[in-house]
Amino acid sequence: MKDLNIALIGHKFMGKTHTHAYTDLPIFFNPDVRVVKKLLCSNEADVKEVSKQWGWESYTLRWEEAVESKDIDVIDIAAPSSLHSDIAIAAARAGKHVFCEKPLALTLEKAKEMMQEVEKAGVVNMVGFNYRRVPALALAKKLIDAGMIGDVYHFRGIYQQSWLVDPKFPLVWRLKKSEAGYGSHGDMGAHVIDLARFLVGEVEEVLCEQRTFVSERPKPLSSSGLSAVAGKEMGAVDVDDASSMIMKFKGKAALGYFEATRYGTGHRNQNFIEINGSKGAITFNMEQMNELEYYSCADADEVQGFRKIIVGEPSHPYMGSWWPSGHIIGFGETFVNEMYDFVQAIAKESKVHPDFRDGFLCQKILETAQISARTRRWQKVDEV
Amino acid sequence: MKDLNIALIGHKFMGKTHTHAYTDLPIFFNPDVRVVKKLLCSNEADVKEVSKQWGWESYTLRWEEAVESKDIDVIDIAAPSSLHSDIAIAAARAGKHVFCEKPLALTLEKAKEMMQEVEKAGVVNMVGFNYRRVPALALAKKLIDAGMIGDVYHFRGIYQQSWLVDPKFPLVWRLKKSEAGYGSHGDMGAHVIDLARFLVGEVEEVLCEQRTFVSERPKPLSSSGLSAVAGKEMGAVDVDDASSMIMKFKGKAALGYFEATRYGTGHRNQNFIEINGSKGAITFNMEQMNELEYYSCADADEVQGFRKIIVGEPSHPYMGSWWPSGHIIGFGETFVNEMYDFVQAIAKESKVHPDFRDGFLCQKILETAQISARTRRWQKVDEV
Amino acid sequence: MKDLNIALIGHKFMGKTHTHAYTDLPIFFNPDVRVVKKLLCSNEADVKEVSKQWGWESYTLRWEEAVESKDIDVIDIAAPSSLHSDIAIAAARAGKHVFCEKPLALTLEKAKEMMQEVEKAGVVNMVGFNYRRVPALALAKKLIDAGMIGDVYHFRGIYQQSWLVDPKFPLVWRLKKSEAGYGSHGDMGAHVIDLARFLVGEVEEVLCEQRTFVSERPKPLSSSGLSAVAGKEMGAVDVDDASSMIMKFKGKAALGYFEATRYGTGHRNQNFIEINGSKGAITFNMEQMNELEYYSCADADEVQGFRKIIVGEPSHPYMGSWWPSGHIIGFGETFVNEMYDFVQAIAKESKVHPDFRDGFLCQKILETAQISARTRRWQKVDEV
Amino acid sequence: MKDLNIALIGHKFMGKTHTHAYTDLPIFFNPDVRVVKKLLCSNEADVKEVSKQWGWESYTLRWEEAVESKDIDVIDIAAPSSLHSDIAIAAARAGKHVFCEKPLALTLEKAKEMMQEVEKAGVVNMVGFNYRRVPALALAKKLIDAGMIGDVYHFRGIYQQSWLVDPKFPLVWRLKKSEAGYGSHGDMGAHVIDLARFLVGEVEEVLCEQRTFVSERPKPLSSSGLSAVAGKEMGAVDVDDASSMIMKFKGKAALGYFEATRYGTGHRNQNFIEINGSKGAITFNMEQMNELEYYSCADADEVQGFRKIIVGEPSHPYMGSWWPSGHIIGFGETFVNEMYDFVQAIAKESKVHPDFRDGFLCQKILETAQISARTRRWQKVDEV
Repeated sequence: MKDLNIALIGHKFMGKTHTHAYTDLPIFFNPDVRVVKKLLCSNEADVKEVSKQWGWESYTLRWEEAVESKDIDVIDIAAPSSLHSDIAIAAARAGKHVFCEKPLALTLEKAKEMMQEVEKAGVVNMVGFNYRRVPALALAKKLIDAGMIGDVYHFRGIYQQSWLVDPKFPLVWRLKKSEAGYGSHGDMGAHVIDLARFLVGEVEEVLCEQRTFVSERPKPLSSSGLSAVAGKEMGAVDVDDASSMIMKFKGKAALGYFEATRYGTGHRNQNFIEINGSKGAITFNMEQMNELEYYSCADADEVQGFRKIIVGEPSHPYMGSWWPSGHIIGFGETFVNEMYDFVQAIAKESKVHPDFRDGFLCQKILETAQISARTRRWQKVDEV
Repeated sequence: MKDLNIALIGHKFMGKTHTHAYTDLPIFFNPDVRVVKKLLCSNEADVKEVSKQWGWESYTLRWEEAVESKDIDVIDIAAPSSLHSDIAIAAARAGKHVFCEKPLALTLEKAKEMMQEVEKAGVVNMVGFNYRRVPALALAKKLIDAGMIGDVYHFRGIYQQSWLVDPKFPLVWRLKKSEAGYGSHGDMGAHVIDLARFLVGEVEEVLCEQRTFVSERPKPLSSSGLSAVAGKEMGAVDVDDASSMIMKFKGKAALGYFEATRYGTGHRNQNFIEINGSKGAITFNMEQMNELEYYSCADADEVQGFRKIIVGEPSHPYMGSWWPSGHIIGFGETFVNEMYDFVQAIAKESKVHPDFRDGFLCQKILETAQISARTRRWQKVDEV
Repeated sequence: MKDLNIALIGHKFMGKTHTHAYTDLPIFFNPDVRVVKKLLCSNEADVKEVSKQWGWESYTLRWEEAVESKDIDVIDIAAPSSLHSDIAIAAARAGKHVFCEKPLALTLEKAKEMMQEVEKAGVVNMVGFNYRRVPALALAKKLIDAGMIGDVYHFRGIYQQSWLVDPKFPLVWRLKKSEAGYGSHGDMGAHVIDLARFLVGEVEEVLCEQRTFVSERPKPLSSSGLSAVAGKEMGAVDVDDASSMIMKFKGKAALGYFEATRYGTGHRNQNFIEINGSKGAITFNMEQMNELEYYSCADADEVQGFRKIIVGEPSHPYMGSWWPSGHIIGFGETFVNEMYDFVQAIAKESKVHPDFRDGFLCQKILETAQISARTRRWQKVDEV
Repeated sequence: MKDLNIALIGHKFMGKTHTHAYTDLPIFFNPDVRVVKKLLCSNEADVKEVSKQWGWESYTLRWEEAVESKDIDVIDIAAPSSLHSDIAIAAARAGKHVFCEKPLALTLEKAKEMMQEVEKAGVVNMVGFNYRRVPALALAKKLIDAGMIGDVYHFRGIYQQSWLVDPKFPLVWRLKKSEAGYGSHGDMGAHVIDLARFLVGEVEEVLCEQRTFVSERPKPLSSSGLSAVAGKEMGAVDVDDASSMIMKFKGKAALGYFEATRYGTGHRNQNFIEINGSKGAITFNMEQMNELEYYSCADADEVQGFRKIIVGEPSHPYMGSWWPSGHIIGFGETFVNEMYDFVQAIAKESKVHPDFRDGFLCQKILETAQISARTRRWQKVDEV
């Protein structure tokens, strides 16, 4: 079996999810390559210690080293969003396969360039919308493709977190446009929009409204991941706290609604999806990510009702590789599923979704929505 | 259409549920008799005023008057349990149809006598296990009879209330054996046992354990329904607070479990039922009484799961007489359904379930259980 | 105690809910007047029989008779929407107190006229948004008014029914603009908008998108309530099937979302409400109308979570008048609560909400939304 | 940092859970030793390939080699139950720390011997009741210890799986007493009993009833984990399919109920726990293992209700080591938590629970229950 040498750039939240994925892959799956955790990159000094603890063979402070190295087959980008495009473009030009966390780039132009470069280079490319690898959502896709809910009338995707409800929570990098590109819209909303495209189809036109509920927050003295310590100086929040959006789909009557908020008091990480169709319906909530609710109009009249499917059977996507019936998996395992599909695409020289084109198209909808929020009217995606 | 003249004995909690039932009957159902609220009886002085407010044509302080009156067709007994047998026996001997709230009597002997008298008199007789008229449970019965859950492996009936958790709650009549006959066992447990018989079959043998968690409580200064004001003097609780019971069914492998408690902290009135069979399963909870969960082994493998059926369709038992789809009914309406079946049985000169025999058989199981709790061993129902 | 003589106009679905309310009122509440079911009006011949069965003292085929009668104190309008304004205006001019089902009128102009007439006449007036009398929603209002969820960030009201999913379902009156005025928007959406006003505040500006998924349906051969038999001839649906709307509130940062659909596959009558605020959150679903979920930021960190409150305690609005703890009520009982508040306002010569002004303001938002759906841009409510 | 060399015996279901645990440990926790996956043992030939794929340094076909090796610090027993005692005793005598999967042994005598040997040897010893490391249950323990639910009135533990509902499912080793020791009772019931002891206290007396619903099944042609292919020859099931048990606790009024079944149609792996106390209550279900429901009597009257706590906060046990707020973990992660506590106990030379004594005491209750099932009466645990 051939080795597949990975260089991972980034060693924070996403760096950890990807490390975990590569580490667990051979225990649960049988990929056609041997995945090697070759090189961990970060410009922070603790990368040395972290690389050792996480089982990477070596480390570097310069991502360029990874791109230049002949040993490396895959560049996996889990670095801050502002670095995505430089790394991805260099990697593509060096002929490396590229995995990139979402959002692809801080601007649509950069995202487009990244897409063009990987397509020109002909390398396998994937963007980190890991929710497609939640078994319950993969099952939803399977049911929809099999026609089991019929034509779609309604899509609702409501993603709620609540970590900004406290006005004293500090101004972390996710609240700065220069570093994050977008607020809730790009961070959580990107997942919802990707799922809308995945499960329903292309978006034609959008109408968006945004809010920044708390416009000034204490600058952080220090921060790590989502936690931070507030200082005394105040600074301006220049991204959205919440986004609300009505959508039209291409060639479909379906009415779409999308929402992302960091002020969803009561919800830590609720990504609620509902799709109602002419033959059935499904609902999903990320906080109960091992469950899919499914309603079938074909059931006999007196016993119709939403079925709560515990997505933990060998017959369910990915679950045959995990534990026996009914033993659930967690958030971290969605990345193992994702990386399995990624490395298999490389092994079999095939395509994998969602690729950079999906990442670009998703970002285009985000941009379109922001234009609509400014102009306060419908905006066509194709005109952006 | 013929008039059916009702005399109702009792004007407290159950008196109100029955009055409500007779009052609403003609608005929602089309019985083959005209139900007339003729006479309200109670030995308490306010019966005059209450009878007027509730729309009864007349009142009396002596229940004997109802039994003796030629005008009266039906004696409906919603009086304290200690009066049930005297009234029912007198009514049967006078040739009146009889409805009696549960439990039939304070002792099994009295219950047996009541059963024998109504059967000898040939009058229509019914006992107030109103849960059989919860549409979701009537639907459960229908599914079971149609073989949709197959052979039963498990029956669980767990009825939890929590009004005794506070040790300062007074010693109301329901906690005195001389007035209530039984504690949680006879009050709530009787419903569970009736449902076990209704949905699964006859009970052969039982094993029971009981608790009285708080053995002394303040005597009430005054009380009304379930609410009461505590005095300073203490008195002994001489009924069970909680009962737990394992059951064998006649001619079935099914393993039964039953529980009734007034110390089910967190639950106001949860009557949870679960039945698992060879082809499917059902669950029910009285606090969501308009829902039945149903699981079918016949569903395709990847979409199996409990269906939450909102029991509010014209195709569901009783619901065609109520509101449009999905508009739910409440506790009070179960008595309207019940009284409809009762008066129709009279109109059509047919039988109705649960009758006094059901009431007696239920009480026999209660008694058997109490013997088992004392002897600390299995006890056969037929030997009691 | 004084008699309060009611004339009810209409004997279909709403006529039944109101009859039920007047009938049950004295059993559960102690109003300061004696409610008399005096006169039932309908221009359909079966009103005679129905009036008898439902316990009305008399009947008439002409609503004008009710308005002209000196005996009548209250005109209760449960007739087809197209008749609302004529009756209400005549009643007000005759000095009668008026209750009117929603929507007030087929057009905003008519609704305004009705409001002006009842205000000029100084009669007690109320519009039938019965959801305000769901105890769980009355409790929500109480919690919000007490500041328990703080400043509102998000309001979501999503009302889903599914009776139009079948394209062969006939073209009933609710699908004709000339008879219903609006589609899902006015029928179900009016409830959502009223709740938004009730729970959050006045709406300033709206943005709306509508769909008619199935534009032609078979004309009905006959119909009764929501059920109908399809004929062979086809006709055009000229109202909306679904409405989606983003809202700004006056003087509040809150972001509002509203949706009404008759294509909510899987849901018979789900009216879902969620409000997230700076100190807590609430959620509600009409299909579990006896429950309110409440989240408090004041709870200790490690035990924070949505509480499922079974709204069945004496401490909860209206519930002290119904059954003991945890015994739930149904859809029909919300009208009893509503009528109690209405007749008490008359007895005490006070105001009651929601009044015709509320009905008018709600309808104004509906109209504004329809303009927005046509112009495809934000529309200010005050400019309509 | 010191190395801690592990030898793992067994490479099936439990071998995989333990391998996963050791592998993920350093990514999420910072133990005070460096865990080394030194040696994988199994008497099946594929151990060579599996050891490589799972990242073990070496392998052996003889477990004795692991015990004899000076390099090895820890013997982790995930082998078939019939081998547990021989290995554990040899390991203890060799001075190795020992981890052993449940049940400790096939008989109580053997379990006792194992306990005595590890205690005599003074090695760190732990038994694999991983449910204690489900964060929601660890939180439950914390709340109970803090007095937040007060004195316990009721404990209910109902563990339902459904893989035997199909009568054609083969006679796998778990259905043979000679290999599994017990049926549902020892496999799933052991977890419930351990949780009863963990959360409530010692069991004094039990009363048990058991069933074997299907007494003959096809012998398997081949099997792997829980899946197997049925042959034509039939064989006898000689363990219980379902166990039902009423329990008394030592020095407590609490009434306990326990159930384990493989015929819980509709449930893949539902381990439901409910505890009602004088100050509050908790409920838990393994299928939603990231949630704990908690009810507090201290909440204000009108907002009392079960809180659904998403156990995913840094303030929750173990969760600070995993993902950000609200990102859930799965079944596999409970073993990582467990192994962290185990290796830390070794590093700090301290004790860890549940130890072999807990394993023995749990098994003693299982045995007592089986005696009760045969004698059909209450049986005291101390007399066994």
